[in-house]
Amino acid sequence: MTRPTMKAAQFHGALDIRVNEVPRPEPKDNEALIAVEWCGICGSDLHEYIMGAITIPTAERPHPLTKESLPVTMGHEFCGRIISAPEGSNLSPGQAVMVDPRVYCKNCNRCKASSTNVCHSWGFKGLSGTGGGFSEAVAIDAKLCYPLPDSVDLSLAALIEPLAVAWHAIEIGDVPNWENQSVLILGGGPVGIAHIYVLRAKGCKKIYVSEPTATRAAQNKKIADEVFNPINEDVAATCKDLTDGVGIDVVFDCAGVQKALDVGMDALRHRGIYMNVAAWETPIVVPLEHLLLKELNIKASMAYDDKHFKETVDAFVAGKFKGVEDMVTSRIYIDDIATKGFHELVENKDQHIKILVTTHKDKL
Amino acid sequence: MTRPTMKAAQFHGALDIRVNEVPRPEPKDNEALIAVEWCGICGSDLHEYIMGAITIPTAERPHPLTKESLPVTMGHEFCGRIISAPEGSNLSPGQAVMVDPRVYCKNCNRCKASSTNVCHSWGFKGLSGTGGGFSEAVAIDAKLCYPLPDSVDLSLAALIEPLAVAWHAIEIGDVPNWENQSVLILGGGPVGIAHIYVLRAKGCKKIYVSEPTATRAAQNKKIADEVFNPINEDVAATCKDLTDGVGIDVVFDCAGVQKALDVGMDALRHRGIYMNVAAWETPIVVPLEHLLLKELNIKASMAYDDKHFKETVDAFVAGKFKGVEDMVTSRIYIDDIATKGFHELVENKDQHIKILVTTHKDKL
Repeated sequence: MTRPTMKAAQFHGALDIRVNEVPRPEPKDNEALIAVEWCGICGSDLHEYIMGAITIPTAERPHPLTKESLPVTMGHEFCGRIISAPEGSNLSPGQAVMVDPRVYCKNCNRCKASSTNVCHSWGFKGLSGTGGGFSEAVAIDAKLCYPLPDSVDLSLAALIEPLAVAWHAIEIGDVPNWENQSVLILGGGPVGIAHIYVLRAKGCKKIYVSEPTATRAAQNKKIADEVFNPINEDVAATCKDLTDGVGIDVVFDCAGVQKALDVGMDALRHRGIYMNVAAWETPIVVPLEHLLLKELNIKASMAYDDKHFKETVDAFVAGKFKGVEDMVTSRIYIDDIATKGFHELVENKDQHIKILVTTHKDKL
Repeated sequence: MTRPTMKAAQFHGALDIRVNEVPRPEPKDNEALIAVEWCGICGSDLHEYIMGAITIPTAERPHPLTKESLPVTMGHEFCGRIISAPEGSNLSPGQAVMVDPRVYCKNCNRCKASSTNVCHSWGFKGLSGTGGGFSEAVAIDAKLCYPLPDSVDLSLAALIEPLAVAWHAIEIGDVPNWENQSVLILGGGPVGIAHIYVLRAKGCKKIYVSEPTATRAAQNKKIADEVFNPINEDVAATCKDLTDGVGIDVVFDCAGVQKALDVGMDALRHRGIYMNVAAWETPIVVPLEHLLLKELNIKASMAYDDKHFKETVDAFVAGKFKGVEDMVTSRIYIDDIATKGFHELVENKDQHIKILVTTHKDKL
């Protein structure tokens, strides 16, 4: 008997993503099989496409849990409908679900302390092997599938994943009441914009963005209170003016570049929080005059954990992310993923927030 | 009428400290006049002596509040007895006092928020002008004088200042219960050792120190639980072993060098706290793999504020710093401050924790 196949977009190396027929995954006892409806292209996918393999495992360094390596089916921001599910799960065929795509060992000291996001062997479906969302179907632990009621627009649900990234960073910022906080977001790309939606959901009323490109600035202006251009504005001075000379309460670094960090730390108040959400390509150099003389608090956020993913799903279902549909700037068919997906982002990254991919032509 | 003079050790520039007769200070309406008994030589004094003027104001950049510049009478870790005090203060002649030596404006947004330690014009008696503790007498705001009961050994009270530095750093670490925390101190010099005394006072039971010199290691071994040599030991690996593989809860950086920071961040647990207390001479480069993948929390501490200085005085009076007399490794007469004080620290820094200076020959 021939094993059934399906369409999947696989990463073979830098600038080399191919749509192939691959074996359809066979769910293990604890796994649900999901028919993927939509899967977003993440900045980390693009990073792999341009410079990879980075996180994606290679033959020389297979992933410690999946044991897999190149080629891998990409895509980790995905939702879909249940094809099959383990007995005793709360999932039945046809049920719409959002998927927590993380891979973790459940056995290390961090997993045992519920900090699964920093598992010593962390990974993601779509980056670490065992199949990703740029495909017709994914098999994944049924416990990582979050049922969505019919009221949720499944064509938008894949956005829950980047929103969960922001949710986690905002939660571990450990600020008691966001309503009274002033926030500066460095970098108005998809991650920065996701932060705005989550901060609004939490009642934040002073959201400023520093973003150098005109196209992204325009996207941010729709939802932020102020958008500054760090190339021709003294963003730190403006932020101090806007906060009666005190400085910004919390900075979210969604840029990961030194110049932005310098501005962000300058803009902060005494004991302000600098939360890094960015993946840096260079070492971080901390300006001493700000760290020491303002007693700053530098934190970093890594993906999301079970609690924060669930909370993001719940908030999405409850309609807390007003206007979040504006994040979707393009919807494409999987066959076009190289040209209208990755290549488009290489050429016109600033024109886009989120490109969603589907294997269902009828959904377009 | 000739204005009365007194003996004072003045900083004129790098490697140039002179004991001169200078005008005796005349207290303003709000000031007490204090006969200094003992004044400690601080690491920042030594720093000025070797490389200054750094913080000490020069003619080109006088201090914004004191308006003074070189030469300045040094010394900011001092205690003494009241000569005169403003009417209505709780101070009377002969009263023993510990002095909070800070200079701040009381008017900026940080002072108004009780964060006087990060006043936009912060300074210290003994570094910023208006007289320091290496002299016979100092005039200072009566509110900065903390009365000490007779039960306190005034020959040790100057240690309250470095203990307050540690107290502030430990308090703003914002750890609910020190009894259950594991701590790694980077650098077993005077600041590191002060942290041990304060941590013990707070009930901390796992205090490890990383210190490369044998003489300082020996000093630390008396009071720390373990002292590691970072030159020939893998300190981070040892710390993980000592914490069941989890990592250290809180690191105090009292070293201010990149190699120590790298070890400290490696030793920390997920969401561990890295508290910087050191003055760095180089930029701080943060190792991304630790900051991001462990979601570390980097903080910095600057001197102390009113609340924490008072708390340290109270703890000292209550006898909470057991064995703190061991911090004093030499007592010298002011005339010998250049040779037996600063030069001795340049040549034999590791042999000393704290050198105390007096203008009273009979106290030696």
